Amino acid sequence: MDRADKPLALTLGDPAGIGPDITLLAFAARRASGTPPFALIGDPDVLAARARALGLDVKIEMIGDPREALSRFASALPVVPVVVGGEVVAGRPSHKAAPAVQRSIEHSVALVRGGAASAVVTNPISKAVLTRAGFGFPGHTEFLAALAGLEPSDAVMMLVGKDLKVVPVTTHIALKEVAGALSKERIVKTLAITAREVSRYFGVARPRIAIAGLNPHAGEDGTMGREEIDIIMPAIEAARLQGLNVSGPHSADTLFHAEVRKGYDVAVAMYHDQALIPVKTLAFDTGVNVTLGLPFVRTSPDHGTALALAGTGKASPHSLIAALRLANAIQRNADAGP
Amino acid sequence: MDRADKPLALTLGDPAGIGPDITLLAFAARRASGTPPFALIGDPDVLAARARALGLDVKIEMIGDPREALSRFASALPVVPVVVGGEVVAGRPSHKAAPAVQRSIEHSVALVRGGAASAVVTNPISKAVLTRAGFGFPGHTEFLAALAGLEPSDAVMMLVGKDLKVVPVTTHIALKEVAGALSKERIVKTLAITAREVSRYFGVARPRIAIAGLNPHAGEDGTMGREEIDIIMPAIEAARLQGLNVSGPHSADTLFHAEVRKGYDVAVAMYHDQALIPVKTLAFDTGVNVTLGLPFVRTSPDHGTALALAGTGKASPHSLIAALRLANAIQRNADAGP
Repeated sequence: MDRADKPLALTLGDPAGIGPDITLLAFAARRASGTPPFALIGDPDVLAARARALGLDVKIEMIGDPREALSRFASALPVVPVVVGGEVVAGRPSHKAAPAVQRSIEHSVALVRGGAASAVVTNPISKAVLTRAGFGFPGHTEFLAALAGLEPSDAVMMLVGKDLKVVPVTTHIALKEVAGALSKERIVKTLAITAREVSRYFGVARPRIAIAGLNPHAGEDGTMGREEIDIIMPAIEAARLQGLNVSGPHSADTLFHAEVRKGYDVAVAMYHDQALIPVKTLAFDTGVNVTLGLPFVRTSPDHGTALALAGTGKASPHSLIAALRLANAIQRNADAGP
Repeated sequence: MDRADKPLALTLGDPAGIGPDITLLAFAARRASGTPPFALIGDPDVLAARARALGLDVKIEMIGDPREALSRFASALPVVPVVVGGEVVAGRPSHKAAPAVQRSIEHSVALVRGGAASAVVTNPISKAVLTRAGFGFPGHTEFLAALAGLEPSDAVMMLVGKDLKVVPVTTHIALKEVAGALSKERIVKTLAITAREVSRYFGVARPRIAIAGLNPHAGEDGTMGREEIDIIMPAIEAARLQGLNVSGPHSADTLFHAEVRKGYDVAVAMYHDQALIPVKTLAFDTGVNVTLGLPFVRTSPDHGTALALAGTGKASPHSLIAALRLANAIQRNADAGP
């Protein structure tokens, strides 16, 4: 049985955020939207309470083994229980939920690595709440790398939007720290992981990678910053020596229009907003976050916990549905192999 | 006679760039594209040679007073002569052209301020070439401010794309210098000029201004940078005390989608690519640069000299046409008054 015959493992996320809402809505829309079978690794009571708040008539069924989800998914939302314990108030995150949030991620990874589920899809977490509860990671990506026994830099974040894939070299750091965080080695490593995984996950034999500059107009020959000359161009040369198909550094502002996007398979940006602005400008609620470099497939919606929307019925499941569908698709590609 | 009964003054730009190409193409397309009458303040011989290179049958007519352009525009491209002197090779900029490039800008401003033309539209210049020739300004905007007797910070750059206006607080500086270049005073001044000019130029009584944060997720409560807390939020409070309709700081990545754009009239970004990426991702070749705060209207295409395209017939006049049309439209609004 290959992984495509298994369900996806969907994590709980912060139970006070919109995770429960979009899980229920994605399940309710499964036929119309082609949502592949998943098992929620989370708290059935939280889900039932949120269903009542939203007026959704969804049958929730506890299962022991995620594989049971395949036969149940037509009639019920299957849940492998990870109990929160303590009250959950939509919109008001509590550090008391942190252990369950973390266990859900750990258990999802264990189920996938043990062969009971095909890939991990994560609901959004509250980093601030987890940090206060002692969670020692900046976010999902770093935690998943640690669970896989990898360095944080082995796991690379990629955003997938409509006709656009972008990898930021640096992610959740202050803008003024970006220039200092860049190095030739870091960029080359990111490029190598990106090339390998885009090939494996999307079936592109030798992906064309377009690299953005850091500065306006990619520095304009060093007149507006020297990182292109000192760091990015040497990284491009080193990547070419490794056989990668890379171009750049390109002026970031002209890199993301439809006509230009046809010229590459994936763009590599230097920082968070340089990557996220084009993705979310074009695909506001269907963007997906994919982690490259892990020994398993992981996707997530590209939005946060959206606390103000939890329990209101206003949260959109589109990004989660896109994340579930993409996890399924790239898992099939990865199984098919080169 | 109000300014709308006068032609626009179009500068030469770098004669080795695509300025001559797009000037000819915009003129040739004037009926189909609704290009308003303009006079080129430049070299008729450069224009004639480029027309031959492109195989364009355009009649070029020298005039003494730009107002003559109105009656000639149906049949000929009117040129107020500013002679380059020396050979012009498409694609190969020369510092020898720099004095004419600069004179064209100065003369265009003088014509508008003297009442012979309605507004200034500038063709792209080669900053590196001008700098080598002793031009002491980072770009058009600062030079135009100086010609008007203003401080550089009195002139504010705005990008106008499809359904999107964005003002960057900082412009052509290295990314690592952005955080240090921001101050409460600078942001408040930019907001005040933006509010006043968007009202005057676009007829929006009290424009809704959405302000982007500097850091990912607008700093997420200070966990990824403190500029939002220390600089941007105090600026927002000060702007509100002045009666401005401002919101933010917003996470920049979610600020530019179609649904979100409906909620504001103009966005204020903290740096070049944060403003330019959404504009050019959405409106690659119809974006227009507008300078706010000058005692005259000035627009320009939002691209550079595109040296590789000069003389090839591949340059697109769409952004220049959009710049000419927008200059005409906002001049009429400014004349109509509040």
